[in-house]
Amino acid sequence: MLDETAKGVFTIAVTPFLPDGALDLDSIDRMVAFYEEKGATGLTILGMMGEAGKLSAEESVAVVRRVIAQASVPIVVGVSAPGLAAIKALSETAMDEGAAGVMVAPPSSLRTDDQITGYFRNVSEVLGTTPWVLQDFPLATGVQMSPRVCLQIFAENPTCVMLKHEDWPGLEKITTLRHAQADGARRVSILCGNGAQFLPEEMLRGADGAMTGFAYPELMAEVVRLMTEGKVEAARDLFDIYLPLIRYESQPGLGLAIRKYTLAKRGAIAHATARKPAPTLSSEAIAEIETLIARQEARLAARS
Amino acid sequence: MLDETAKGVFTIAVTPFLPDGALDLDSIDRMVAFYEEKGATGLTILGMMGEAGKLSAEESVAVVRRVIAQASVPIVVGVSAPGLAAIKALSETAMDEGAAGVMVAPPSSLRTDDQITGYFRNVSEVLGTTPWVLQDFPLATGVQMSPRVCLQIFAENPTCVMLKHEDWPGLEKITTLRHAQADGARRVSILCGNGAQFLPEEMLRGADGAMTGFAYPELMAEVVRLMTEGKVEAARDLFDIYLPLIRYESQPGLGLAIRKYTLAKRGAIAHATARKPAPTLSSEAIAEIETLIARQEARLAARS
Amino acid sequence: MLDETAKGVFTIAVTPFLPDGALDLDSIDRMVAFYEEKGATGLTILGMMGEAGKLSAEESVAVVRRVIAQASVPIVVGVSAPGLAAIKALSETAMDEGAAGVMVAPPSSLRTDDQITGYFRNVSEVLGTTPWVLQDFPLATGVQMSPRVCLQIFAENPTCVMLKHEDWPGLEKITTLRHAQADGARRVSILCGNGAQFLPEEMLRGADGAMTGFAYPELMAEVVRLMTEGKVEAARDLFDIYLPLIRYESQPGLGLAIRKYTLAKRGAIAHATARKPAPTLSSEAIAEIETLIARQEARLAARS
Amino acid sequence: MLDETAKGVFTIAVTPFLPDGALDLDSIDRMVAFYEEKGATGLTILGMMGEAGKLSAEESVAVVRRVIAQASVPIVVGVSAPGLAAIKALSETAMDEGAAGVMVAPPSSLRTDDQITGYFRNVSEVLGTTPWVLQDFPLATGVQMSPRVCLQIFAENPTCVMLKHEDWPGLEKITTLRHAQADGARRVSILCGNGAQFLPEEMLRGADGAMTGFAYPELMAEVVRLMTEGKVEAARDLFDIYLPLIRYESQPGLGLAIRKYTLAKRGAIAHATARKPAPTLSSEAIAEIETLIARQEARLAARS
Repeated sequence: MLDETAKGVFTIAVTPFLPDGALDLDSIDRMVAFYEEKGATGLTILGMMGEAGKLSAEESVAVVRRVIAQASVPIVVGVSAPGLAAIKALSETAMDEGAAGVMVAPPSSLRTDDQITGYFRNVSEVLGTTPWVLQDFPLATGVQMSPRVCLQIFAENPTCVMLKHEDWPGLEKITTLRHAQADGARRVSILCGNGAQFLPEEMLRGADGAMTGFAYPELMAEVVRLMTEGKVEAARDLFDIYLPLIRYESQPGLGLAIRKYTLAKRGAIAHATARKPAPTLSSEAIAEIETLIARQEARLAARS
Repeated sequence: MLDETAKGVFTIAVTPFLPDGALDLDSIDRMVAFYEEKGATGLTILGMMGEAGKLSAEESVAVVRRVIAQASVPIVVGVSAPGLAAIKALSETAMDEGAAGVMVAPPSSLRTDDQITGYFRNVSEVLGTTPWVLQDFPLATGVQMSPRVCLQIFAENPTCVMLKHEDWPGLEKITTLRHAQADGARRVSILCGNGAQFLPEEMLRGADGAMTGFAYPELMAEVVRLMTEGKVEAARDLFDIYLPLIRYESQPGLGLAIRKYTLAKRGAIAHATARKPAPTLSSEAIAEIETLIARQEARLAARS
Repeated sequence: MLDETAKGVFTIAVTPFLPDGALDLDSIDRMVAFYEEKGATGLTILGMMGEAGKLSAEESVAVVRRVIAQASVPIVVGVSAPGLAAIKALSETAMDEGAAGVMVAPPSSLRTDDQITGYFRNVSEVLGTTPWVLQDFPLATGVQMSPRVCLQIFAENPTCVMLKHEDWPGLEKITTLRHAQADGARRVSILCGNGAQFLPEEMLRGADGAMTGFAYPELMAEVVRLMTEGKVEAARDLFDIYLPLIRYESQPGLGLAIRKYTLAKRGAIAHATARKPAPTLSSEAIAEIETLIARQEARLAARS
Repeated sequence: MLDETAKGVFTIAVTPFLPDGALDLDSIDRMVAFYEEKGATGLTILGMMGEAGKLSAEESVAVVRRVIAQASVPIVVGVSAPGLAAIKALSETAMDEGAAGVMVAPPSSLRTDDQITGYFRNVSEVLGTTPWVLQDFPLATGVQMSPRVCLQIFAENPTCVMLKHEDWPGLEKITTLRHAQADGARRVSILCGNGAQFLPEEMLRGADGAMTGFAYPELMAEVVRLMTEGKVEAARDLFDIYLPLIRYESQPGLGLAIRKYTLAKRGAIAHATARKPAPTLSSEAIAEIETLIARQEARLAARS
């Protein structure tokens, strides 16, 4: 079961599809193996970049089952939905299947602090004893949660054990939360998203690791390891080599197609297909990705 | 099967719940009977005011089955969902159960004309031969569709047979669409929403009726009938008697609670319960509703 | 100077233009006389419906001068602007010219409670001793202020003496604020907007009057008077006669054109012109307005 | 006068303030000299990152005068405002003072294609013969303009001579626009924003240069020069050295404070002060910037 001590890299997993748009369950097996081999200490499935919203309820359950059957690391299942009944239904299924916890983002209709904290009290009630991750991603949800609101959610809901941090900019938020926790507030795990664009700074501010889906999980695992060992300059040197591609993959909307292209190229999934509606990569975009990967490999080679 | 000739009043049905939040399937039977007795020529279920987003996939299917088993008028099923797979799954089930058609609103992420028309081409493709209603409700979705975009959607998708019109303000849109159709564009049925606040004007602009859920469907049926018969002043006189309550029920957010309170008071459903998260009525609000109903009844009585 | 005891009807004044779009300063004189004659106890100028955003800085000052020169009631000047410097500049000019206070709405970029309260601390600082009105209009600004946030703003800023209430729905907010004030919170004046659509209920909930621009200010003055005297049924009877037109004028976007048409028809301003970009009334819309006015007059006549 | 052949680097200039928030006109002189010395071929003032919204009308004019008096490169003046009268007033002043053109972003209320193109026809009309830049920055404005809408604006308004491109992701938009122009559409200059995060790719897609405010304009000038000369790898190598800081400065909201800190450190302006409301840099943030600059300098030194 997921708890406040979680750390390392929880990779945001993609959902593999066949070229005709059907679920590619076979690719799930090799994808899970790939992520674990590259250093993932956990996996988060059915998140936004897992195209969760494009799956039917039955398909979501099929993905949960297949991933958990294959994985040896803890699995967090994204259960965000327009209503509490759907959240409850998928959460119960996921936990019955062996998930370590679930993740919930606020619906975009929430505005005031009271609306936000009230919503998560309702969520927590329907989740019962299931540990859950608060996803804080204002660029995607439009919901801005101040540090005070986050702290109130942690205080009111003991089953909220982790913050998926992707406020942007969010470095001060990490510092503010860690200071509050040093002053007695309940400490939760903080894993950071946003495609790892700020991972070195996030670790230095007090994060426990990353929860994002950059197609080179080994970079994230290595930066977290080096940072944890105090090898800050080595972590930065490595990070900078990957940064041009991290930046490129972080383009909103297009990012998923870029990530799936790279994962397919690396053999983690059989096809780069995303479900409609989804952007496709132009030949120019593919050339750009290939150039960035080639330069990245050359710099990694020059380094050793 | 729903087609472009649909007219009259398609009542937006609420979803009845027991006080503990469970589905109240028994109330569905009496609610359907109530709506039909009050003049509904069709019903639309699982819309926004049907709390569709708060149901699990299984519950949605249960509601569809029960309504269709009880109803003798055509049933439109709201199938809006974050992804096409869920839209497809619920639509197929609904049509298999005997629905007349489905209704789809655009997801709030759409902005440009091209994004909107592209989305509905995708929707139409997954719906196959199922007739569908385009829901145009910018206050709720944030998506603004110009008349030109609506006309393009009608032209590109022959299975789109109806516009649920609730742009706001939207009277000019009706006129623009009807003029375009007089000039050769494909004609679709236009039924109007927004709680019937503009029903007399909408009918005069060329609407075919109403698709909304004001708790006195007989008012809508009677206004549509009188207008169709050319008895405009009589329609307006009747409308004005109900307008204070129409206005009160049209409050965003709170409207559902007001509507369910009134329907429960009228015996159409057993309980006014809405599923969490939902606003509740204060004692002041209940007093206001009771006052408005009493005044409405007095004016109706004085009239006869 | 405006203070917490303000009550009655502060009419939101339009800004009159000549047919070519230039300021119509002569019409300001007769408009002010019209509003006062119809019972306004104050005027609010340069609000959203005063097309403030469409004026240059010089034109805004010209309007302020002309209105204050003509008026015998207190004048509130809308000073909302993207930045504090512009707010400060216009406020100082307005107060120097003899305004009673200013009005400020939150910029649409604000989201969290802390951002909102922080913004108004900054506003209050630049305004110095100038009394100001907090405009709470989420439909237009996108900023939702919970009752707690409003109370915090009143507590932190003693120069904030009034709430222009147009949250929607907002009846519960009035009750909540008045209860808090009964429990010791600082009491401010509450004048209500939203085109007077809920004026009877707002008065019963504890409002001190109206601040909105419905083209028949005498209706608002009379409802406020009757309510204050406890003649609730008489107030409601009168209100219901005007409600069909109130509803029609309350259409977002189009409302300004409707209001200016009616004011021009009534002789309050010379031309119905609104500055571009602005919607224009179709012949159908004009016919609808004329019908509503005719019916309103017939019912008023039948009543006496 | 600005025209469709503009290229190179138009630096988005900050507006310097004294520690008490007053305009720092003396710093304007050295800032202009700094930007020109570092390779700017033009300057854009009073943009979003120029804190235009925080200036009074008088202050805006003072900045325009001082910059133009000092500069030897063409000056573009941001004139976006809530209304056309303010746009017209500032534009006329700017052109009278010697500006080369003006820049306009769409107000956030625009949604449909027709609303957007209609708005810019109005803008073009009030601007008369003044050449103008279309600012396409959906992350800030919320307005999404499809390539088709951009092309329509260029076609309808011959005085629109440049696109400030900062859609995001926006690489495909450059390609689409250039293809359309190869097929006969009117060609305009495209200068790219977004803090130069995608400058190498943007140049390869067909951009004419950059219009953004990264605190090392020499990087932008050099990348544009190298790309123009076909030295793509050299451009990328240089770009990658600056990328960690480019990324850090690109944080929304906080970016301005980071940029001003760096510019003050480099001697381009006397004080890093931004006008309230503005974020301030924590000691952690300052340490992060200093680290990034030190690493950048070390890598630049190692390269020569």
